[in-house]
Amino acid sequence: MDYSQSELRVRYAETDQMGVAYHANYLVWFEVGRTDYCRHKGFTYERMERETDTFMVVVEAYCRYRRPLRYDQVFVVRTRVERLRRRAMTFAYQILDAESQEELARGYTKHVVTDGRGRPKSLPVEFREYFA
Amino acid sequence: MDYSQSELRVRYAETDQMGVAYHANYLVWFEVGRTDYCRHKGFTYERMERETDTFMVVVEAYCRYRRPLRYDQVFVVRTRVERLRRRAMTFAYQILDAESQEELARGYTKHVVTDGRGRPKSLPVEFREYFA
Amino acid sequence: MDYSQSELRVRYAETDQMGVAYHANYLVWFEVGRTDYCRHKGFTYERMERETDTFMVVVEAYCRYRRPLRYDQVFVVRTRVERLRRRAMTFAYQILDAESQEELARGYTKHVVTDGRGRPKSLPVEFREYFA
Amino acid sequence: MDYSQSELRVRYAETDQMGVAYHANYLVWFEVGRTDYCRHKGFTYERMERETDTFMVVVEAYCRYRRPLRYDQVFVVRTRVERLRRRAMTFAYQILDAESQEELARGYTKHVVTDGRGRPKSLPVEFREYFA
Repeated sequence: MDYSQSELRVRYAETDQMGVAYHANYLVWFEVGRTDYCRHKGFTYERMERETDTFMVVVEAYCRYRRPLRYDQVFVVRTRVERLRRRAMTFAYQILDAESQEELARGYTKHVVTDGRGRPKSLPVEFREYFA
Repeated sequence: MDYSQSELRVRYAETDQMGVAYHANYLVWFEVGRTDYCRHKGFTYERMERETDTFMVVVEAYCRYRRPLRYDQVFVVRTRVERLRRRAMTFAYQILDAESQEELARGYTKHVVTDGRGRPKSLPVEFREYFA
Repeated sequence: MDYSQSELRVRYAETDQMGVAYHANYLVWFEVGRTDYCRHKGFTYERMERETDTFMVVVEAYCRYRRPLRYDQVFVVRTRVERLRRRAMTFAYQILDAESQEELARGYTKHVVTDGRGRPKSLPVEFREYFA
Repeated sequence: MDYSQSELRVRYAETDQMGVAYHANYLVWFEVGRTDYCRHKGFTYERMERETDTFMVVVEAYCRYRRPLRYDQVFVVRTRVERLRRRAMTFAYQILDAESQEELARGYTKHVVTDGRGRPKSLPVEFREYFA
């Protein structure tokens, strides 16, 4: 299964008073993973949005937290496409400790393809090929 | 079913370049809902953490996004306890438009009870009564 | 001097591992103060952006932090216009403890008026009157 | 003048509905710059906090925004110590476009040295040497 890997480091801003990374940030890291996945496949999500008025709107998000991440910890977001249809797709993610490769969290996001006004459309053919 | 309601307004900081509220913020709003739920039941989560070294660590989070929220839109987070056990609990949430009461999103978070070092413990009896 | 007041509560997401509100959030609270200031003066910033393609872009931001804010603490953002010109304006802010009214932080933001593409323009006459 | 450089990319989560990076995020990027500056000098801020109960609390923050940053844009945070005293220090930052090296923003943060309870203390000798 083809996947991309993004190496990140927990920011101070991302911690909370429990001394660990706040759980909502994982969805942000997933999104960094998606951006890098597109680059990994040969295009940029930024260009897809800007040039073809195509957006992948999040309709569901899920995360399972296994072990906390701490400030300055280096981790990897491993991103892959789990399901691809013309008007919808699912990405799956793993958060791994960069050193031990232990899984710290996993999750998924489901998306529908829309134009800039939120109307459903099909993924442009050019980009379907990138994902396939 | 007993629930609390929190009225919030979408902040400019919470929007993204699609012109709608960024999806990770919903988990933050859920957390505001949890804090208000505790107050609604007669105690503060802040005091539970500080005085009894008890934390409700998020182990799973899920959100289903139905309609986008926009900058300055007023919405309600409706929070309830879906399941309560000695060492674990599940909160369920709805995001509603404040005016139309239309459901814009819904989700849940699952928690385990730990001390400040992340070790599992039981919810102190005093607080179990608040939740029950 | 005319000012608006916004009452807010520190969110768990806004704390960091020092156990206090993370400093970048104060700029977000200032922005909540600006939004409320506009409403206080009789219009919404949201409508100004949307209907007249007018934006108040931040060109400078400053904050002086005096005392930390903690999770669940209620505070007030007091916002006023310090300087108003056709194409630029300065807002000044105070963060006060809601109960003691002690000043916890203060700051300012400087703005230039632009259209949606970032080109300088004058504040529409209608809105100048609101601010004056 | 000795400085560190951090290369970052604007996250989707960091944009707002104007289509540019939201201004409060620059303070977060400055903080990433500080963390990297410490590493650049041979120690980690994380270890200083944890092992010596020493914190560099932000007491002032300032940013001048010159040109907007956009989603997926690569930029550099250039960080240096502008002033160092036993109990206080000032960091200065530049945000540069990674490619053109054009300055997009600049700012500073002032800090006092405290223990974990917020009481002023001197920077441990070991760390003064790193900064000097």
